[in-house]
Amino acid sequence: MPYDRQVAMLLREAGLTLALAESCTGGLIAGRITALPGSSAYFAGGVVAYSNRVKEQLLQVPPSLLAEHGAVSEPVARAMAEGARLLLGSDLALAVTGIAGPDGGSPEKPVGTVLIAVADRSGCKVERFVFSGDREQVRKQTVDQGIIMLKKRLEASKRS
Amino acid sequence: MPYDRQVAMLLREAGLTLALAESCTGGLIAGRITALPGSSAYFAGGVVAYSNRVKEQLLQVPPSLLAEHGAVSEPVARAMAEGARLLLGSDLALAVTGIAGPDGGSPEKPVGTVLIAVADRSGCKVERFVFSGDREQVRKQTVDQGIIMLKKRLEASKRS
Repeated sequence: MPYDRQVAMLLREAGLTLALAESCTGGLIAGRITALPGSSAYFAGGVVAYSNRVKEQLLQVPPSLLAEHGAVSEPVARAMAEGARLLLGSDLALAVTGIAGPDGGSPEKPVGTVLIAVADRSGCKVERFVFSGDREQVRKQTVDQGIIMLKKRLEASKRS
Repeated sequence: MPYDRQVAMLLREAGLTLALAESCTGGLIAGRITALPGSSAYFAGGVVAYSNRVKEQLLQVPPSLLAEHGAVSEPVARAMAEGARLLLGSDLALAVTGIAGPDGGSPEKPVGTVLIAVADRSGCKVERFVFSGDREQVRKQTVDQGIIMLKKRLEASKRS
C-alpha cells in the first residue's frame, strides 16, 4: 500500500486529524493528502507559508527565531508544526521548510536542505535532510519524506 | 509560454502579490505557483481550506453563507477570495471551491461543479464550471482554469 494510503488509514483508525504547514513544498503535501477521496474526515487544513510574514502572523513563529536561525532551521520547523496544530485545531501537524533551489543555498545550508517536523500532543520531532536534484526533485523528495515521517509517527503512537 | 509562467510574469511586471484559498484542489494551485523559482517575490501564501471550520475561522467566511448556500457556491467562493486577500495581505486572491468526487454530488451540484473566484482591489469575479472526469481530472482542470482566470484578470487590469 502506498504511504499516503497508509497515513490515511492510520489517521482514520486512530480518529486523529492532520494539519499542514508547507514552505518549500508550497502545497504539494496537501495536494497529496487530499488526492484521496474522503480525506476531509481527517484533514483539518493547511497553510502554505512561503513568506516569513505568513510564518509569523498565521503560524505564530516568533520573529526572533527567524532572525536568529533563519527560516530553514530546526527551531522554525518545530514552531511551524506547533503553530499549524494550534491554528487549525488538529491532533497532528506536519511542517516543512527548506531550500528547493536553484537559488538560496549557502555553504552551511546548501540547496536541498530541508527540515521536516511532526508535532502531536506528546511533542515535536524534527529531522534534517539534504536532498539532491533540481527544484522539482527536491520538492518531490520532501513530499515523500514528509509522508513517511507522518506514517512513522502514527505507527509509533499506535504502539504506545 | 505556459499560463503559469505568464501569470508569474504579469505579477512581477505589475508588482502585485497573490494569495490562494483552495478547497477542492487542496494545495495544487499553490504547488503550481511555487513550482517556479523566485515565486516568493509575488506569492504571499495560501490556505488549504478543506473544512468549513477553516473557511470560517481563517478566511472569515460567514457561517450564514455556508448554511444558506453550501460550501460549493458563488457567495462562498467570493467570500473565500476576499478573506484570503485580507488574511494574507495580498493584492490579488484566487479561491476555488468544488466537488471533486467521487462522493458529494447532487442533482443541483453534480460532481465536477467548481466555483472559481478572483478578487482584487477593484472587486471580485466568480465563474462556475462543471468539469467532467474523475477526482484527479476535476482537480487538474480546476487548477488549469484557476490559472487561466488569474491570467485574464491580470491582463485586464494591465489594459485598464
